[in-house]
Amino acid sequence: MNDYAGKPLAVLAFSGGLDTSFCVVWLIEQGYRVHTVHVNTGGFDAAGLAAIEQRALQCGAQQHASIDARADLFQSHLRYLLFANARRGAGYPLCVSSERLCQARHAAKYAVENKADAIVHGSTGAGNDQLRFDTVFGVMAPGIRLLTPIRDLALSREQEVAYLAGHGVEVDASTGSYSVNAGMWGMTIGGRETHGSWESLPAEAWPDAASSQVAVREIIIGFEQGIPISVDGTSMPPVELIEMLNTVGGQFAIGRGMHLGDTVLGIKGRVAFSAPAAHILIESHRELEKLTLSASQQFWKETLGNLYGRMVHEGQALDPLCRDLEAMLESSQRMVSGEVRVRLQDGYMQVLGSRSPHSLMALQPAAYGEQSTGWSGDEVAAYNKLHAMQQKLCWAQQQQAEAAQ
Amino acid sequence: MNDYAGKPLAVLAFSGGLDTSFCVVWLIEQGYRVHTVHVNTGGFDAAGLAAIEQRALQCGAQQHASIDARADLFQSHLRYLLFANARRGAGYPLCVSSERLCQARHAAKYAVENKADAIVHGSTGAGNDQLRFDTVFGVMAPGIRLLTPIRDLALSREQEVAYLAGHGVEVDASTGSYSVNAGMWGMTIGGRETHGSWESLPAEAWPDAASSQVAVREIIIGFEQGIPISVDGTSMPPVELIEMLNTVGGQFAIGRGMHLGDTVLGIKGRVAFSAPAAHILIESHRELEKLTLSASQQFWKETLGNLYGRMVHEGQALDPLCRDLEAMLESSQRMVSGEVRVRLQDGYMQVLGSRSPHSLMALQPAAYGEQSTGWSGDEVAAYNKLHAMQQKLCWAQQQQAEAAQ
Amino acid sequence: MNDYAGKPLAVLAFSGGLDTSFCVVWLIEQGYRVHTVHVNTGGFDAAGLAAIEQRALQCGAQQHASIDARADLFQSHLRYLLFANARRGAGYPLCVSSERLCQARHAAKYAVENKADAIVHGSTGAGNDQLRFDTVFGVMAPGIRLLTPIRDLALSREQEVAYLAGHGVEVDASTGSYSVNAGMWGMTIGGRETHGSWESLPAEAWPDAASSQVAVREIIIGFEQGIPISVDGTSMPPVELIEMLNTVGGQFAIGRGMHLGDTVLGIKGRVAFSAPAAHILIESHRELEKLTLSASQQFWKETLGNLYGRMVHEGQALDPLCRDLEAMLESSQRMVSGEVRVRLQDGYMQVLGSRSPHSLMALQPAAYGEQSTGWSGDEVAAYNKLHAMQQKLCWAQQQQAEAAQ
Amino acid sequence: MNDYAGKPLAVLAFSGGLDTSFCVVWLIEQGYRVHTVHVNTGGFDAAGLAAIEQRALQCGAQQHASIDARADLFQSHLRYLLFANARRGAGYPLCVSSERLCQARHAAKYAVENKADAIVHGSTGAGNDQLRFDTVFGVMAPGIRLLTPIRDLALSREQEVAYLAGHGVEVDASTGSYSVNAGMWGMTIGGRETHGSWESLPAEAWPDAASSQVAVREIIIGFEQGIPISVDGTSMPPVELIEMLNTVGGQFAIGRGMHLGDTVLGIKGRVAFSAPAAHILIESHRELEKLTLSASQQFWKETLGNLYGRMVHEGQALDPLCRDLEAMLESSQRMVSGEVRVRLQDGYMQVLGSRSPHSLMALQPAAYGEQSTGWSGDEVAAYNKLHAMQQKLCWAQQQQAEAAQ
Repeated sequence: MNDYAGKPLAVLAFSGGLDTSFCVVWLIEQGYRVHTVHVNTGGFDAAGLAAIEQRALQCGAQQHASIDARADLFQSHLRYLLFANARRGAGYPLCVSSERLCQARHAAKYAVENKADAIVHGSTGAGNDQLRFDTVFGVMAPGIRLLTPIRDLALSREQEVAYLAGHGVEVDASTGSYSVNAGMWGMTIGGRETHGSWESLPAEAWPDAASSQVAVREIIIGFEQGIPISVDGTSMPPVELIEMLNTVGGQFAIGRGMHLGDTVLGIKGRVAFSAPAAHILIESHRELEKLTLSASQQFWKETLGNLYGRMVHEGQALDPLCRDLEAMLESSQRMVSGEVRVRLQDGYMQVLGSRSPHSLMALQPAAYGEQSTGWSGDEVAAYNKLHAMQQKLCWAQQQQAEAAQ
Repeated sequence: MNDYAGKPLAVLAFSGGLDTSFCVVWLIEQGYRVHTVHVNTGGFDAAGLAAIEQRALQCGAQQHASIDARADLFQSHLRYLLFANARRGAGYPLCVSSERLCQARHAAKYAVENKADAIVHGSTGAGNDQLRFDTVFGVMAPGIRLLTPIRDLALSREQEVAYLAGHGVEVDASTGSYSVNAGMWGMTIGGRETHGSWESLPAEAWPDAASSQVAVREIIIGFEQGIPISVDGTSMPPVELIEMLNTVGGQFAIGRGMHLGDTVLGIKGRVAFSAPAAHILIESHRELEKLTLSASQQFWKETLGNLYGRMVHEGQALDPLCRDLEAMLESSQRMVSGEVRVRLQDGYMQVLGSRSPHSLMALQPAAYGEQSTGWSGDEVAAYNKLHAMQQKLCWAQQQQAEAAQ
Repeated sequence: MNDYAGKPLAVLAFSGGLDTSFCVVWLIEQGYRVHTVHVNTGGFDAAGLAAIEQRALQCGAQQHASIDARADLFQSHLRYLLFANARRGAGYPLCVSSERLCQARHAAKYAVENKADAIVHGSTGAGNDQLRFDTVFGVMAPGIRLLTPIRDLALSREQEVAYLAGHGVEVDASTGSYSVNAGMWGMTIGGRETHGSWESLPAEAWPDAASSQVAVREIIIGFEQGIPISVDGTSMPPVELIEMLNTVGGQFAIGRGMHLGDTVLGIKGRVAFSAPAAHILIESHRELEKLTLSASQQFWKETLGNLYGRMVHEGQALDPLCRDLEAMLESSQRMVSGEVRVRLQDGYMQVLGSRSPHSLMALQPAAYGEQSTGWSGDEVAAYNKLHAMQQKLCWAQQQQAEAAQ
Repeated sequence: MNDYAGKPLAVLAFSGGLDTSFCVVWLIEQGYRVHTVHVNTGGFDAAGLAAIEQRALQCGAQQHASIDARADLFQSHLRYLLFANARRGAGYPLCVSSERLCQARHAAKYAVENKADAIVHGSTGAGNDQLRFDTVFGVMAPGIRLLTPIRDLALSREQEVAYLAGHGVEVDASTGSYSVNAGMWGMTIGGRETHGSWESLPAEAWPDAASSQVAVREIIIGFEQGIPISVDGTSMPPVELIEMLNTVGGQFAIGRGMHLGDTVLGIKGRVAFSAPAAHILIESHRELEKLTLSASQQFWKETLGNLYGRMVHEGQALDPLCRDLEAMLESSQRMVSGEVRVRLQDGYMQVLGSRSPHSLMALQPAAYGEQSTGWSGDEVAAYNKLHAMQQKLCWAQQQQAEAAQ
């Protein structure tokens, strides 16, 4: 029986896995009472959540909080990543970084509200996650002591299992060849082939094995000011819509890839990912932007969207610049309403078309490539003449310079 | 029988189609002797080139020049577009704009060298091409009169056919539902569905109908400082390599899409495209960059590559800024050597892996996601702490400001 | 006596000068009834405004509207240019372009509201102003016929004076050596020396001749979320504050320069300018940003502020991208409140210091350059080690590549 | 008498001040033989250099190397900063960061060539310098142990003086109120007022007290492809030219300021600076660029120049992106040749004019603001019409959207 009186409180961001289970027991041994906080950013059903809670209590947590942050994940992070069409290296849709950011924010908030003495995460020292947790905890819970037992102790899985067993907690030590992280914006798979740059994940390694028997399917995604609001005319909230597209798109193995990228610490890392909903939504959203935004908006959104994605990836999401970029991105979505038609096929997706009450194409005087009705030949010749003015001067400058040599 | 003595010379960028055939006859009628210049940027075999020459002479051209500009197209334009991974709207690989630029440059050069009195193109006033021709002719052949009969007269196809028939030139008036432009870096298809934003091209409308019976195939592309140099270990010059990938990739219907973009004149235009080689090469090239470039190089290459693509698209390729961007892009390719393994499947392509003698991944101390060997937990904690410093200050600033309200 | 019944209405952006006076008479002769609209964006007193109205009526205008747009100029344009610290070529503060934009907006609004048949400006075809008027009129008054008599007729000043005299309007034909445009955000002076690049304006050519006898003076500017709100502790609205700084700063000849820039039409143009308030405010504002914004905010504000200035200069202020940039700029000003102390001296200004309730400097743990209290030597060494990680890998890559050659 | 046999070699970046003098003695006590390396990046005469050497030997250094790196500083760093017109916060010309980078490079090179066992710098843990040294040493001398006694021991000045005295080295313990760093590209002054944001340095605190009695003076700077090559027609190498401008400009107190900036570690720092040559050269160079570069070149140079400056400031100068940016900057200078006329006055400088054999202004058809000779009114009206096309469509889109609400 635990006696919590007078013990300092440690708030632990808890996943239910081996590392954070170890942390609970270890923290108690250090004299803490432990509140475990599980922040669901997708990928869990009720049974899974219950199992996590049970594990926390079994390890000795005084209290377990299960926070459904899926709607907040969309509202605070994914929405802007979608406005930005953000993908690392033109492929990977920033699933893990946005999830960790969201999880760390909720855990920090919990720690501050509960006047915790320590705030704890269970990441190793090798990757991006530990930096994201450290950063958000340090920024949002500045007066609370940060503890990182897994990073500090650097134990092997076997050592952790033995330690837990020694404290009466039996954990299944077996582990697959791959480490999988699943959430609303995508799943990542690391291990074996991802340790090098040449090999690709074998077909059987993808947890959500797609069926190649599924027939080609067309769907229509509806957007309102950049937010996805419906599929095939049926309205649904973003979380439900994303989960549905993950299921549907997953059947076609859409949105899979191998991402070789730069970690925050400056080394290269590689990971496989499966992100059907993110892929379908980003490609659809971009198409609607092509129909409703000006050329200059698109050009600068591309650059600033990349920047936004880079900052989220590199643990700089709490820099006020990100708030300024969000204001810019939100402003850009005023007209991004309408529908996009896409075809899902075995292994890939095609955007077929788009339409919008704000279509710039529908407003315009001349069908592209046809006889123009909006201007005369003389007018466009005059436009071209002046459009080329500075290039003419610079060419003459160059010719003159070469002649003078 | 023609008597050219004393007649002014008109140099015409000649495609062999109805519009430029009309131009030849019309120019002669205005008192010019005409030199037709055909600039091959891909998409023609010997028979096709011979037919074009025959048509020119049949229309009354005094002289016909057939210029094979494929190697120059690669060296002067495609190479940089590949270094830039340039695609309009994250899809369309800038095939037409680079071709027109190259064709216009060669025609202007011919006109200057032959002291032409007039330089002529056969584009209508509706699209991007006329601006590109006007610009390059105006810049590179500044003292030579520009004539644009098709844009000025705005005749219907029927009127042009009748005019030609009246001058003894029989031209097949029939035309397909689509207007096709084929070149080394891709083929565009316009018409019917592309006049709106909602419908997609039907399967049978793609000229290079892919066979769905082709078995999955893996190939390895070799690069040397960003230039593609081999396929499956067989070295070949870029032109040959690109044409081979167009054939192979075309069998899988790889690199197809519908592009909705902004024309230089400010209206939206839509076009279907098929660009197997460009697609395969850009995706492979980007993968090799991920392995060999720094994070900062990749971020800024993305922005500046988009800029470079935009300038080529908008007829600003002769602005000296493009020379500066080319210098930047070329510098960035020093280490981009190695091989990329890709899988070609029905309808899409996957990058499987990459390797390079300059792999940054191979040099690094810690495998990503594994126990690090390059730094301790304390070190990375200290890094994180200082990395978050400004975010901490800004957060405190924000909290304070809110508290003061 | 005029009979307006049944006559079409022409709305003319009226400055009161020779060109727009000519336009009134000429428009009446073409059968129009004319409403003159004078939009005051600074630089006029009551007597000046009355003289302008009198001139309009004397020329035969049916109605004259005098719109005080100074507050709107600040709210709609100058505010964002100040948030952006926008200066062309690091010097010239975009006075004329913002004024023209504002004037054209108000004239277009008047024309639409009064169901005008024609909308008219009096700019020549040589400069930037005619493009700005054409653009705003074309965008905001799309169904109204655009008339530009001065550009079309290309008369000399003498011809215009004679024409007016022939219609009973006597205008002083004499003109100074310089053409001056004065407004709230600055005054420009063109002529003689500005036609080349080498000579500078002589001292006596500056209309607001500064007194070199004025004693050095320190003032304190107060800002609230980027908006200037007080001078030396006295609150005042932006228009009054700007006019006061123009007077005070003008006595010191502060904010003068010669600007060699690029016109929208692609040629170079040069102009002298005197913009005391703009200079003092931009420099003060930037200083306060240094104290209250993050490094990343400042870096990107610089680039996007330049972009915003470029778009205003080039007649693209009505592109929706400018709305997105304004949202970004406005977001960035949340913390830009406080005071800046500047010293005004003969010919130049120095920023002496700044303070803010949101000072990031005041929050921080370590005084720069002193013994740090926020981190240990070990911590910062660890930070540096990881901060240099990718540079180390790239250096090794480079060494290896060189060794292999 | 020292016996060096068998002792490990420590290479110390040596300034001759208290901190690095302490390092020599301390290193010897740890069992090292010490080579001191002094890298002159400006600010030293022969006597000063001799005193530094004497101090090194007096402290017990086995060997002292005095490297004149001024020409290399210009060639490797300042040249690009000038091409970039790089100033932090639109004011401070990056003098210290470029110097430290150069000093660290030479010290690292010396250490590698002499097979040192340790490489040492004497910076505290509070500022930017320690990061720059750590970074360059870590990158360029990766196998050599890094020692940082001053950062690690964190002794007071008094403790260091006492320690030295205890080892027979008498050092003047007195120190001024300010810490001064002088080099070729400028001098910085820190202390007292710079610890806050509100106060400014008093007049007497500037070491190079300017004489207010100096008469106004005009000078002409000559440039060749962006490199300053002459003053008033007299050719001189860059180092000599810069030192001359520091002397001349210093008499007028030109190029002084107070810089409030962001340190690499995320905190704000403030420093006074005096950089006459940098100020005169950057302003002159920019003027010549206005005359000879296209508008697009200038816009993107501004952004990329800021980026280059930021990377040098933040210790990222060895990222290969900087090599790419240098290639871009160098390319941009092809036409930047000519002369700039500036007036030096008490406290400030004015650019009066510029001229160039590559002047774009001299080539152009129309004087700005005058009757154009390069185009007709109709032509420019047509240009404006098409230039505004997309803004018109977007405006109509917006009106329609508002009406629909």
